[in-house]
Amino acid sequence: MDSCVTPLRHGGLSLVQTTDFIYPLVDDPYMMGKIACANVLSDLYAMGVTDCDNMLMLLAVSIKMTERERDVVIPLIMRGFKDSAMEAGTSVNGGQTVVNPWCTIGGIASTVCQPNEYIVPDNAVVGDVLVLTKPLGTQVAVNAHQWLDIAERWNRIKLVVSEEDVRKAYQRAMDSMARLNRIAARLMHKYNAHGATDVTGFGLLGHAQTLAKHQKNEVSFVIHNLPVIAKMAAVAKACGNMFQLLQGHSAETSGGLLICLPREQAAAYCKDIEKQEGYQAWIIGIVEKGSRTARIIDKPRVIEVPTKEKEGELW
Amino acid sequence: MDSCVTPLRHGGLSLVQTTDFIYPLVDDPYMMGKIACANVLSDLYAMGVTDCDNMLMLLAVSIKMTERERDVVIPLIMRGFKDSAMEAGTSVNGGQTVVNPWCTIGGIASTVCQPNEYIVPDNAVVGDVLVLTKPLGTQVAVNAHQWLDIAERWNRIKLVVSEEDVRKAYQRAMDSMARLNRIAARLMHKYNAHGATDVTGFGLLGHAQTLAKHQKNEVSFVIHNLPVIAKMAAVAKACGNMFQLLQGHSAETSGGLLICLPREQAAAYCKDIEKQEGYQAWIIGIVEKGSRTARIIDKPRVIEVPTKEKEGELW
Repeated sequence: MDSCVTPLRHGGLSLVQTTDFIYPLVDDPYMMGKIACANVLSDLYAMGVTDCDNMLMLLAVSIKMTERERDVVIPLIMRGFKDSAMEAGTSVNGGQTVVNPWCTIGGIASTVCQPNEYIVPDNAVVGDVLVLTKPLGTQVAVNAHQWLDIAERWNRIKLVVSEEDVRKAYQRAMDSMARLNRIAARLMHKYNAHGATDVTGFGLLGHAQTLAKHQKNEVSFVIHNLPVIAKMAAVAKACGNMFQLLQGHSAETSGGLLICLPREQAAAYCKDIEKQEGYQAWIIGIVEKGSRTARIIDKPRVIEVPTKEKEGELW
Repeated sequence: MDSCVTPLRHGGLSLVQTTDFIYPLVDDPYMMGKIACANVLSDLYAMGVTDCDNMLMLLAVSIKMTERERDVVIPLIMRGFKDSAMEAGTSVNGGQTVVNPWCTIGGIASTVCQPNEYIVPDNAVVGDVLVLTKPLGTQVAVNAHQWLDIAERWNRIKLVVSEEDVRKAYQRAMDSMARLNRIAARLMHKYNAHGATDVTGFGLLGHAQTLAKHQKNEVSFVIHNLPVIAKMAAVAKACGNMFQLLQGHSAETSGGLLICLPREQAAAYCKDIEKQEGYQAWIIGIVEKGSRTARIIDKPRVIEVPTKEKEGELW
């Protein structure tokens, strides 16, 4: 499970909590703070928890940063983190800051709730479908963006992608990583989800396999569709598959929820999330009878997710 | 406050939680795990909380360790951490492990409790006394022990201390850092403590000042006695006061609780803790009328704490 659930001594309540930290991957410190916060909260949301009672922040400031760099960057990271927590209806009280060779940003999210407030992710049944709430390809986009300044790398991908494409994909990735999975979690209750996980470091398939392994029923997950930030599938291919994106192994940061939903509810789930947030979700696979494994079919359909699907305040 | 207290949506309950992590400072990985766990829990104990509902572990494995070193050292650290959690009547469910240039070990301790289960540390009154439950000097002892292998350093202190003294002080420090402040916390309730903090990175005086600053009443703390692991005051002096031990600034790891107790209860508190644990606690100062500050008197009495005060299983 993405979060740990501890039964408490008081009135049938449970403590649901999670911790995570990540290394900086975008060059905007404020957005980095937001992404780190969304990434921590995502583990709660994967359990269907929608309200976080408290967050702690963990921050390691790099010893390689100058004092001036620290003074500018760290408050921005912290502000991003706190703003994201506020957007999630919670706040940051406590934490620890240290210096370290590598900058790391993360935290702890905790909530105390009744059993009906979280969804144990072990209840998939044959006939369910799999829904994904954010596109894949954040790691590819972040790397491609760095390569704009590294001629040798850029030469490997410039035949399949323009500088403009990469900048847009990077913006889309940053926006996606900073987006909370909170509404996705809320709708899990409304549409009777049978379980979910969030897609992060182990890639879509890695997390799908972990989710499959923990099912009560003898089921397997088969993934047919891969929604990917526009052009990033081509970039991944041009790199000789170093990302293993289409094999499902490319790491994501603060990725979407992968949710098992009753077949007849899934379309409504996707429509509802799009209505509320302006972002698409996709039915990407099915739940079959099987031995608790997950796989991607031989030639999955790649869905190119436009980089300007939502006009508005962000870009 | 050492822990953060969040009122919950359920029946008058609060979430009390804390996070901390430290860098390795002893060469025994199992003891290092125990110390890291005791250090995290200590922030709860400082609030008078005696029962921890759950712990998460945070571990950063150094990229400079060989695979073989990792395979040997990391399981021992984790076992020490878990054994300490078990000793504290809790368990470790969840956490995160990453690689990083520097090895770090820490975690999160959380509990959900009623208002009478924790003691807000702001209630000191004139006439209270200050009790300390562990000796000072852990940092000095750990450093002196490292200097056994550094001739240049050792030469600076060998006139005031023998190799045997240093080894004993190091053992005593390790034992002290791994010891839980749990019974100290439990007895805070029995003897009506008015507030406490734990002594860690900012040294005795730093933490005393923070505690003083947050008092409701106009009080100040005056410290007369400094219990120090045997010979470590002399070592600190021989180093030209680089540690600032007798000035109250030497960092401690997993130090004791500094507790404000009613004068007439303090001796009983000390006697009780010694009876239960076999370790001394000391009355080290008084609470006067004042402007919420703390100070150590000009020539404090140094109490040499024997390195073999408790015979038994440990050494």
